[in-house]
Amino acid sequence: MKLTLAEPRLLKDTISILNELVNDVQIKIDNDKIEIVATDPANVVLVVFKLLSSAFIEYQIDSPEKISVSLDNLNQILRRLKGNDTLSLEVDRKKNKLIVKMSGDSTRTFNLSLIDMDEREQHIPELEFKSKVVTNSKMLEDAIEDVGIVAESAALILNKDKMSIKGAGNLSNAHIEFPKSDDVQIKTDDNIEAKYSIEYLKKLIKGGKLSDEVTIQWNNDYPLKLEYNLVDKLALSFVLAPRISED
Amino acid sequence: MKLTLAEPRLLKDTISILNELVNDVQIKIDNDKIEIVATDPANVVLVVFKLLSSAFIEYQIDSPEKISVSLDNLNQILRRLKGNDTLSLEVDRKKNKLIVKMSGDSTRTFNLSLIDMDEREQHIPELEFKSKVVTNSKMLEDAIEDVGIVAESAALILNKDKMSIKGAGNLSNAHIEFPKSDDVQIKTDDNIEAKYSIEYLKKLIKGGKLSDEVTIQWNNDYPLKLEYNLVDKLALSFVLAPRISED
Amino acid sequence: MKLTLAEPRLLKDTISILNELVNDVQIKIDNDKIEIVATDPANVVLVVFKLLSSAFIEYQIDSPEKISVSLDNLNQILRRLKGNDTLSLEVDRKKNKLIVKMSGDSTRTFNLSLIDMDEREQHIPELEFKSKVVTNSKMLEDAIEDVGIVAESAALILNKDKMSIKGAGNLSNAHIEFPKSDDVQIKTDDNIEAKYSIEYLKKLIKGGKLSDEVTIQWNNDYPLKLEYNLVDKLALSFVLAPRISED
Repeated sequence: MKLTLAEPRLLKDTISILNELVNDVQIKIDNDKIEIVATDPANVVLVVFKLLSSAFIEYQIDSPEKISVSLDNLNQILRRLKGNDTLSLEVDRKKNKLIVKMSGDSTRTFNLSLIDMDEREQHIPELEFKSKVVTNSKMLEDAIEDVGIVAESAALILNKDKMSIKGAGNLSNAHIEFPKSDDVQIKTDDNIEAKYSIEYLKKLIKGGKLSDEVTIQWNNDYPLKLEYNLVDKLALSFVLAPRISED
Repeated sequence: MKLTLAEPRLLKDTISILNELVNDVQIKIDNDKIEIVATDPANVVLVVFKLLSSAFIEYQIDSPEKISVSLDNLNQILRRLKGNDTLSLEVDRKKNKLIVKMSGDSTRTFNLSLIDMDEREQHIPELEFKSKVVTNSKMLEDAIEDVGIVAESAALILNKDKMSIKGAGNLSNAHIEFPKSDDVQIKTDDNIEAKYSIEYLKKLIKGGKLSDEVTIQWNNDYPLKLEYNLVDKLALSFVLAPRISED
Repeated sequence: MKLTLAEPRLLKDTISILNELVNDVQIKIDNDKIEIVATDPANVVLVVFKLLSSAFIEYQIDSPEKISVSLDNLNQILRRLKGNDTLSLEVDRKKNKLIVKMSGDSTRTFNLSLIDMDEREQHIPELEFKSKVVTNSKMLEDAIEDVGIVAESAALILNKDKMSIKGAGNLSNAHIEFPKSDDVQIKTDDNIEAKYSIEYLKKLIKGGKLSDEVTIQWNNDYPLKLEYNLVDKLALSFVLAPRISED
């Protein structure tokens, strides 16, 4: 197996985002893609990450592989990537290592020990959404950060004309409105509303590093799905459990 | 009441400076200006801040208002302002809130609870100064930071030809000289000298964010007055109690 | 004595590097140079720094001087240097002070107390090296930082064709290769290898701030010598004791 990535930041930025959520992960490598499916320890968020073979300049595999690594360690290694480096990945089954090679002015090789993990397949729940918003990922990020100033959870509210994000704390409350526009595409039949943890949202919105556009899907007191995609390159999606309102 | 500010940094930067000195403040809004007069908890420094109605693009008030807010909370909210935002302020007496609205790519609204404060009027002492220095605020900032390396208090010394700032610690001492020049306008009849706390001075000199020029007035063992003004926009002044020298 | 330096960063950056290694130092000033020879408290690294008289725009001394100062205090003072400042140094024997004067928009003077130190001469060991690598100091810095991700010590390995830097931790290992090239000049008769502490190496490689080129000399289980030179200006060299491998 030999995989070479010309834009290593696609992997570097994703691993840095996942590392805020998950500890150890299983990485599946097949003919089409590298895939990570993982949940955080509290089981509140599910991550599905696909880095497509078409994102690579070299993508040779003999047979599908499954390897498990510590995200902390992988992240520390990938943070050493510099601007012009290309990144290549190999699995050395004999030494039980993932070989991470960075080539730029010099060639730097890191061998990361594979770890043992339960082989249980992550269950990806089937979700049905009737509503969808496609918008600028930076605008979503700002709104979540804004609400995070005053509250610990954010209500995402949608009607035909606008999406609103609201939060309330002891002393202050905040709301941000996204009226329907070319930059805020809204598709919904009903008025919907659900609350989600700001702490988790703040981690998920970092997906904006990867894609300028985010697709937001949710429903009344129902999980939230955020998708960050780069055509022919990668797909990163998060499913976040709602906070059921107590009132 | 509806106030709209095209240069929100005038308020944002000031509140960030005041927040280092004061906790809760009363804000007076009348036909001409927004005004904050406050002292720090230790009663060592008095702040007088005026943001003139001419700094606003919209300035409508029905009758003068007095509101009190937590500076910590107001500061956290104003830090969310982005480069191109305009800022509008309203008071909602029914809900007992200050409504802070930021309009840019999206419209973000924060409602901050008003708090109860003693209505006692801050006393602004009448001070008489016979000496005055007008200089570059960055040069004053550097000098205070320099002396802060070696000492906990700074002596401000003035004669007809120059201003000096001096400090002495256990191992080192420092002095900075400002000879009279086009950039250092000096007006004094006497030689004067007084000492002030570096810890406080370091907070006050941040007024240089607002204005490139600072007016410095003091006298022998007498309070120090620093003024940062922007014509037709704002006036920020500090009165700092002296440290009476023990020797 | 009066010394004036047009490029104060030569002294500022060096003192900042030495301050990570040594506490108090003796500074020798003679007709040709300012010299500091010091070892760290654990006696693992020896530093020899020479700032040549030709680096100064004014270099007047009456007779050779030896003074001792706290590096912490000197470093704090020199950090206050700004881009265009010139730096002048004088010794005031009566007041027992080193006078550090920074001249730019204003003139700022720091007087640093001289301290008493054992007058014992630092012994500079005579070392014989048969191997030498001259390379880009940034490349060495990156390699040490890379290995520092996974290990606490780095092995420096040399043969006629390449230099390698290797490190191994519990979960991962890393190696960086520098094949012989115009940028990597290698001179050696034997294959050599020795291990050194990453913690110390990370401090020494900051010499790259001063010079783009580093000369590396070592031998099997033998001290390492790093040299950063600027022709006619300065010479900074470190001798680092090896970690004798236990296996």
